[in-house]
Amino acid sequence: MKSVREIIKEKPIIGWLLFIGTMIIVFLIGLLASSIVERRTEAVFAYSPELEFEDRIEPRNEEWGKYFPRQYQSLIETKDTSFRSKYNGSSMIDMLEEDPRLVVLWAGYGFSKDYNQSRGHYYAVEDLRNTLRTGAPIGDKESPMPNTCWTCKSPDVPRLIDELGSPEEFYKGSWEEHGDEIVNAIGCADCHDPKTMQLKITRPALLEAFDNMDKDINQVSHQQMRSLVCAQCHVEYYFNKDMVKGVPYLKFPWDNGMTVDAAEEYYDNMGFKDWTHPLSKAPMLKAQHPGYELYQTSVHAKRGVSCADCHMPYKSEGGQKFTDHHIQSPLNNVANSCQVCHRQDANELISDVYERQDKIIQNRDELEKQIVHAHVEAKKAWDLGATENQMNEILQHIRHAQWRWDYAAASHGGSFHAPVEVSRIISTGMTKIQEARIKLARVLADLGHNEPVPYPDISTKEKAQEFVGLEMEKLNEEKQEFLEKVVPQWIKKAEKRESSWDKES
Amino acid sequence: MKSVREIIKEKPIIGWLLFIGTMIIVFLIGLLASSIVERRTEAVFAYSPELEFEDRIEPRNEEWGKYFPRQYQSLIETKDTSFRSKYNGSSMIDMLEEDPRLVVLWAGYGFSKDYNQSRGHYYAVEDLRNTLRTGAPIGDKESPMPNTCWTCKSPDVPRLIDELGSPEEFYKGSWEEHGDEIVNAIGCADCHDPKTMQLKITRPALLEAFDNMDKDINQVSHQQMRSLVCAQCHVEYYFNKDMVKGVPYLKFPWDNGMTVDAAEEYYDNMGFKDWTHPLSKAPMLKAQHPGYELYQTSVHAKRGVSCADCHMPYKSEGGQKFTDHHIQSPLNNVANSCQVCHRQDANELISDVYERQDKIIQNRDELEKQIVHAHVEAKKAWDLGATENQMNEILQHIRHAQWRWDYAAASHGGSFHAPVEVSRIISTGMTKIQEARIKLARVLADLGHNEPVPYPDISTKEKAQEFVGLEMEKLNEEKQEFLEKVVPQWIKKAEKRESSWDKES
Repeated sequence: MKSVREIIKEKPIIGWLLFIGTMIIVFLIGLLASSIVERRTEAVFAYSPELEFEDRIEPRNEEWGKYFPRQYQSLIETKDTSFRSKYNGSSMIDMLEEDPRLVVLWAGYGFSKDYNQSRGHYYAVEDLRNTLRTGAPIGDKESPMPNTCWTCKSPDVPRLIDELGSPEEFYKGSWEEHGDEIVNAIGCADCHDPKTMQLKITRPALLEAFDNMDKDINQVSHQQMRSLVCAQCHVEYYFNKDMVKGVPYLKFPWDNGMTVDAAEEYYDNMGFKDWTHPLSKAPMLKAQHPGYELYQTSVHAKRGVSCADCHMPYKSEGGQKFTDHHIQSPLNNVANSCQVCHRQDANELISDVYERQDKIIQNRDELEKQIVHAHVEAKKAWDLGATENQMNEILQHIRHAQWRWDYAAASHGGSFHAPVEVSRIISTGMTKIQEARIKLARVLADLGHNEPVPYPDISTKEKAQEFVGLEMEKLNEEKQEFLEKVVPQWIKKAEKRESSWDKES
Repeated sequence: MKSVREIIKEKPIIGWLLFIGTMIIVFLIGLLASSIVERRTEAVFAYSPELEFEDRIEPRNEEWGKYFPRQYQSLIETKDTSFRSKYNGSSMIDMLEEDPRLVVLWAGYGFSKDYNQSRGHYYAVEDLRNTLRTGAPIGDKESPMPNTCWTCKSPDVPRLIDELGSPEEFYKGSWEEHGDEIVNAIGCADCHDPKTMQLKITRPALLEAFDNMDKDINQVSHQQMRSLVCAQCHVEYYFNKDMVKGVPYLKFPWDNGMTVDAAEEYYDNMGFKDWTHPLSKAPMLKAQHPGYELYQTSVHAKRGVSCADCHMPYKSEGGQKFTDHHIQSPLNNVANSCQVCHRQDANELISDVYERQDKIIQNRDELEKQIVHAHVEAKKAWDLGATENQMNEILQHIRHAQWRWDYAAASHGGSFHAPVEVSRIISTGMTKIQEARIKLARVLADLGHNEPVPYPDISTKEKAQEFVGLEMEKLNEEKQEFLEKVVPQWIKKAEKRESSWDKES
């Protein structure tokens, strides 16, 4: 048998073929290696400097932004509300105009005066000053809201809690008292530790809720933290006035569990109400925005997808991978959010979301109508001389039905996050309101009114606000005065304070 | 510069390295090629013989099975009902025992006598003979059901339609008339063309429904056919007695669309009812099993997944890939069905399904209770002398509420296939029944009964059947006699006929 060398000697072409083949393979291996290295580079996060804000919890996002320009640049993109223009050309959606039934459902409560779909984190402080719900505190006149209402609006909140020494010192007092302190837009210090840049829970209510459930929030994973920092605010909460006498203490109603049923039981057991409805006299609950709780029942949560995975997906710039801090609906950013897992066309994915929402809104609207009707029927019964004995059970049904409706309606994105749970909640609300209205029909018949109580003409926001007796002109005028006289002083004082910090350092 | 040959000459090791490297690479390429060829082999379907059943549409699955042993073997696995034992040790689930409310909802209609969860295709003929719904036709006594009821039960049906010359010839007459003709279990000839083995629509109603919608069923894809052969039977249908005088003609109510709302509108417009409820006197609709229609609203349908993809997934045996004809719940076969697309743990996938079902069943049960109560309240109103004028609108609400409940309840797997649509349907049913019950409260008050009408004690199937006035002992005895005297004769006659076919050939 011939040796390879002999073969090559006889037919040099074989030697060349071997050589060229090897060259090609080595070249391809080189390409692969390069690609692997490149991917590794992408996966590496930007260098994390250690910040030293020693004097205070730094509330100014632009200060953090000096060290984290990419995150900061994306954060201030929440200023852009142009995507809203598809609705009505405005960056705000007036929900009371969209759906005047809300005015009747929330009659006697701040939300019936004014309720806009929020514009996003960047505008949280400004929108809170602007809303009629915070009133027009000028001179000695107080806001109808307590300082607790600032809690979710700004990184000045953890700073102020720290400076005041305790949450109750922060919560107590009327809303205008912290007006000159809370000025910076939601941002870095709300969710990050400046020293380690780790995610951090800065709001006491979530820490206390975990304590109450005997859970250790320090034991959760980074992936869970990517939802929990959102859960500081995007949850159901209430103001408890018994924990610290006279202080509206911010608390989550999670002691019996995180479901709509568990929270209802919690509130019922403690005899809590947010307000008494002026038409039906029912002891009402206002659901806040139980986004985290409903998300917990979703298939996305079950698969370990965090809030940030869809609302703040990773992006790459200049070979660096970082979290996009332009917090927004994933529908504005399908490629980086949904399509990371779902290989469908973006339009198809968006239509999937709308389809779920449309199917659910049909019955949510229906439930709203039924609850409005029940309030009006209950008022008629009181007008005809109904007794508390006749009405008590009915008012409980109304309370529970509206609680369930509000829980389903107020949760941001609930109809997408957890469509089956939201549908379930709406259906249970329908059962409650049915009970109320059948009993109301009997009470009314008993009082001599055995016919339908007319549904009010609340076809516009104005008609609905007039129906519930709101003097909108006065409220708007007072607000205007407050915005012109008081707010500029707040801002001036805050600027002075912040520039004094810069001189210190 | 030295030539390669020179280099090799100087350092023979380089030549050897080149040679060995090439050998290894060629070996790996060989492995890859082999793997590709193997996969191709797996993908090739078994050789398809051309069957020649010239004399008739061959109804006997075992005859087809001689040529398609793998498909046949898997088909007759539907005989095994042992997976059911987790319920109550029996292969049958008596739905009336599970949920005695059904007896009241279907009072006056066959389903209140007897309703078992179907055991599967293998038992379709046997179960139809056994059910009390088909009665006990002995001698001159007729069944309460027409021959139309056989339509979905056996491949003897396309044979008989062919032999009789038209669908109406098959549909007309009383159920016992075809008793000796229809004996073979659902199988090959129901969905396949014996000559080409292509999927084939053998039932006239689906062909006619497509015609009515101006759609050409011959233009659909093979993938769509993998659902449409199921849609021959797993749909909502009714018996139209006007198309061919006196013949209960099988028809799908799809002229206005395939949704629950469209079918309701269709039935309302033609003034159709399945029966009159003996308690409320409401003109009722019985939903059949609108599985295909609800599946059409599902995300699986939107992604192009067919019925067969999950209920008859592909499997491999001896290097041959074929469709598993053991038609069953994908939950009994998660590895070959769900996990082809979903990379989650089987138990997690199963719990996802149960979670959706549990959330929906809570409100479906509630809706059932409300409809039962409405029937009872309406009866009370009639008993107290209510007029048709007072009751007509109420009865329409009851009709619509129960139609929607039944549509949601009767569809096999609907709560999984289309949880949001099923939830929507249940909620709309709740609105309808609320309307009915509020109006009933007023009518009853008007008639002097201004208090709740007691909910009946229907805690067991027996109590419920007694409540609606069914004489179950008599019905069971008659059925027993029928099964002992008549059915054996049917079977004997059928065997004689089939053995005469074998002699012919």
